[in-house]
Amino acid sequence: MKKQSNSKLKIIPIGGLEQIGMNITAFEYEDSIVVVDCGLAFPEDDMLGIDLVIPDVTYLKDNIEKVKGFVITHGHEDHIGALSYVLKDINVPIYATKLTIGIIENKLQEHNMLRSTRRKVVSYGQSINLGQLRIEFIKTNHSIQDAAALAIYSPVGIVVHTGDFKVDYTPVFGDAIDLQRFAEIGKKGVLAMMSDSTNAEKAGFTMSERTVGVTFDHLFAEHCNSRIIIATFASNVDRVQQIIRSACKYGKKVVVEGRSMVNIITTALELGYLDIPKNTLIEIDELKNYPDEKTVIITTGSQGESMAALSRMAADIHKKVTIKPGDTVIFSSSPIPGNEKAVSRVVNELSQKGANVIVRDAHVSGHACQEELKLIYSLLKPKYAIPVHGEYRHLKANAAIAEALGVEKENIFIMQSGDVLAIDANEAKIVDKVQTGAILVDGLGVGDVGNIVLRDRQHLAEDGIMIVVLTLEKGTNQLLAGPDIVSRGFVYVRESEDLMEEARQVLYEAIENCLMSNRYVDWNRIKLVIRDTMNDFIWKKTKRKPMILPIIMDV
Amino acid sequence: MKKQSNSKLKIIPIGGLEQIGMNITAFEYEDSIVVVDCGLAFPEDDMLGIDLVIPDVTYLKDNIEKVKGFVITHGHEDHIGALSYVLKDINVPIYATKLTIGIIENKLQEHNMLRSTRRKVVSYGQSINLGQLRIEFIKTNHSIQDAAALAIYSPVGIVVHTGDFKVDYTPVFGDAIDLQRFAEIGKKGVLAMMSDSTNAEKAGFTMSERTVGVTFDHLFAEHCNSRIIIATFASNVDRVQQIIRSACKYGKKVVVEGRSMVNIITTALELGYLDIPKNTLIEIDELKNYPDEKTVIITTGSQGESMAALSRMAADIHKKVTIKPGDTVIFSSSPIPGNEKAVSRVVNELSQKGANVIVRDAHVSGHACQEELKLIYSLLKPKYAIPVHGEYRHLKANAAIAEALGVEKENIFIMQSGDVLAIDANEAKIVDKVQTGAILVDGLGVGDVGNIVLRDRQHLAEDGIMIVVLTLEKGTNQLLAGPDIVSRGFVYVRESEDLMEEARQVLYEAIENCLMSNRYVDWNRIKLVIRDTMNDFIWKKTKRKPMILPIIMDV
Repeated sequence: MKKQSNSKLKIIPIGGLEQIGMNITAFEYEDSIVVVDCGLAFPEDDMLGIDLVIPDVTYLKDNIEKVKGFVITHGHEDHIGALSYVLKDINVPIYATKLTIGIIENKLQEHNMLRSTRRKVVSYGQSINLGQLRIEFIKTNHSIQDAAALAIYSPVGIVVHTGDFKVDYTPVFGDAIDLQRFAEIGKKGVLAMMSDSTNAEKAGFTMSERTVGVTFDHLFAEHCNSRIIIATFASNVDRVQQIIRSACKYGKKVVVEGRSMVNIITTALELGYLDIPKNTLIEIDELKNYPDEKTVIITTGSQGESMAALSRMAADIHKKVTIKPGDTVIFSSSPIPGNEKAVSRVVNELSQKGANVIVRDAHVSGHACQEELKLIYSLLKPKYAIPVHGEYRHLKANAAIAEALGVEKENIFIMQSGDVLAIDANEAKIVDKVQTGAILVDGLGVGDVGNIVLRDRQHLAEDGIMIVVLTLEKGTNQLLAGPDIVSRGFVYVRESEDLMEEARQVLYEAIENCLMSNRYVDWNRIKLVIRDTMNDFIWKKTKRKPMILPIIMDV
Repeated sequence: MKKQSNSKLKIIPIGGLEQIGMNITAFEYEDSIVVVDCGLAFPEDDMLGIDLVIPDVTYLKDNIEKVKGFVITHGHEDHIGALSYVLKDINVPIYATKLTIGIIENKLQEHNMLRSTRRKVVSYGQSINLGQLRIEFIKTNHSIQDAAALAIYSPVGIVVHTGDFKVDYTPVFGDAIDLQRFAEIGKKGVLAMMSDSTNAEKAGFTMSERTVGVTFDHLFAEHCNSRIIIATFASNVDRVQQIIRSACKYGKKVVVEGRSMVNIITTALELGYLDIPKNTLIEIDELKNYPDEKTVIITTGSQGESMAALSRMAADIHKKVTIKPGDTVIFSSSPIPGNEKAVSRVVNELSQKGANVIVRDAHVSGHACQEELKLIYSLLKPKYAIPVHGEYRHLKANAAIAEALGVEKENIFIMQSGDVLAIDANEAKIVDKVQTGAILVDGLGVGDVGNIVLRDRQHLAEDGIMIVVLTLEKGTNQLLAGPDIVSRGFVYVRESEDLMEEARQVLYEAIENCLMSNRYVDWNRIKLVIRDTMNDFIWKKTKRKPMILPIIMDV
């Protein structure tokens, strides 16, 4: 008879709380690690010049022989975006539903990694065995199709991870969330539930995606004599489907504009997730062949992203579409926190060009509100609750719901990135902390921009730079040329020649004094004198603190 | 008998639409100019390193002999903040209500301009004659006390400027808006109405400030066993008054924290706008003498401003207040667009320290919603409507209300900054455009940071700078030293020594080739070679574009 093991299941968020967006969690049982999701984050405001942020997966690299695969809940960037980077070190198979795999394949193709990556399409209800863990995919609803919750079967019990989800009883495509399966698993007994906290501060129930279709019908009726431009999230194929249905009903042709939108629509069409009647889609160049009121443009840019198609139309720099008075522009979206001002800028620009801009009512969230979370807690009745996916305030709101639904307070864990939660039926506790972090991607550089570089960029952005160059004679340290001062981002030089000349004089004296007192003075000493002198002088004159960069050459 | 003049009244927004925040409007009739408000704007995200933005008042300077005075509607920064700068060139008297003058005097004092500035307190109902224009102050309500609408009497008719306003039937201090006077003036006949558009997109009626007091009572009752920290706008003295009332009711001592808050409270107390029972206020150092649940801290930082008191408490860098588990923190505010993310960051930090954070229900707006605007349009029945104070989308929403209330569509003007609207009883039209603009203030510098400097800062912020220095021999142009490469904000050098060494080699060859082909080549040519070579090399290697700055010396 096999001896009972004392092993516990370890749950380790590798991205998570401090790195919002980087959804990546390791589930480890003895020699088996399964990784759920592998997302990227977009840079915070103070990460100047950074393109995107990916998780530090040192822990996975250090345990590479244990890692059995990536299991992906759905195809949003914050769940799949880091795969192309992480797979370079952790080349294990990827498991996901059909559309999710399709979207991942697009990304792998861009990185030229399609051949080197193993991937497997999983159906709802299907389980995959990965070492000592078994993962079952459960149908859920979200703002992208083919989203899945995961039941993770381990020798110590079942963990259910909801992924990002909502409860949509009347989805546009496919089935509603499989509540019966949640109930069945709940009956078996659930050790821990990890659930989406995004809307946990919001009371009530998120409306069905289908209600947006009704809104579109109303808006299309009201604005039937105008061209309609609708901005929405590229990946919300159901939204696009409903726009197309309304367009057909009102006899309009549809143009899809924006690279990411076109990519996903193409994939969704190929895989059968989108149904477009013949002669509905037209190319953007064909717009001129139809009267305005017979056309609809579906576009990216619903978040006010400066390079997206709608923003380019609003700024009058789009090559094919010019906004005209009378156009109806619908934002089928709500601004992600931080994007409010950018969205408002685009709305203003569109309004100024005479467009009728509609920002309300044509959107529903993809995330569960409080009543939906209560439903899932009630079906699963987990012993432990681990709120995931959200800022701290959201996790805390989810924790309060868990507690209200009967989970013991000490069995609720708001985890930090890198925390190792060891659980079994008897207890759960944080037993360790592993290395995690945010790796900054800037151009081709992955991780070569760190805090020192960011601090410098911040400094340069605030007050610019003043470079002081001088040439000394080798051996004698005699000043042969300079000090010359060159500045960028400080003041416009032609308007401040006097200031610069005065600075040069002050510097010259300070340097000569320094050299006079000790002809063989260390260059670092000279640089210090330059920095101090300039800092003092410039602060006194301008109350600014540009970066001072002394450069000494000798000949 | 005096001959009938053909002159028109000219209305010229000098700040306004493109410069949101800089509320400053000139009213000109023949030889008389009266300026309404003189506000500053806070820098946009792309104005790196800029402290604040003030209006270009060239038009006023060019017509200085006509300018009779500044008439100020209320004491918010976006209506008074540029006075200290503009008065240096346009030293005319300031007219405003008592508290508004008090707040302006604080600012003048800071700029050491109190003695050199004439100012006059005006009461509601009082008129002042400024050249050929007469200005009457009318009581309104707003999120600061002593707000006024202005009736501007000109030989061609009356213009009513609402200022920022709401209709509060039950204000905390003083009287409700003087609707009877609006009606009387409406009966006389109003040429044009200029009204606050901030909330023109919002249906209904803004709630009374007094409703927030009720909310405070409820929150104080609910959290009577906890310390309460409330963040609100420094200038909302009525809000502070209501917090103090609730504190007294529940037997709590009150600390006021944050420099701007202390300033305004002091002024309001001196002038009798705030009533604080004895033994209610305590110093921040006295907090330790009272049990937590007996104290309330009113603080700045409701917008997540990184240096404000609440943000410092949240980040654990406040010298006197440490957030404890169980503290109740109330945001008595709503985030101004663009500040959402900063506010959320502070909420998360406070939650993580165990505070119970309340962000809802303890705030009302200071601006009129649609029904209030309709009320004023109905009382005044203006011939012309000029929406002011808002982004384009808000002005447009206000215009729609004016039209719905019977103002002819062609009599509604959404003006651009610098537009000159000439009006009389017969017609109104834009007849001219005068110079306006945003002047950037950075430290002591007013206007010395322009677009070139901002572009450089943006470039530096994105990808940093690489400086290439070399020394040539005078006359022969022989390369004596360098090229040396120094970078900041690009990559951390120790991790990229190979890249730098390679770059140096490539550069060296390019420069030598350039010198070899023509020993007396122009330095600008050498600099061009350096820029091109480095740009190519760095882009190929990193897909980044740091600023390349060649510096050549000769000895």
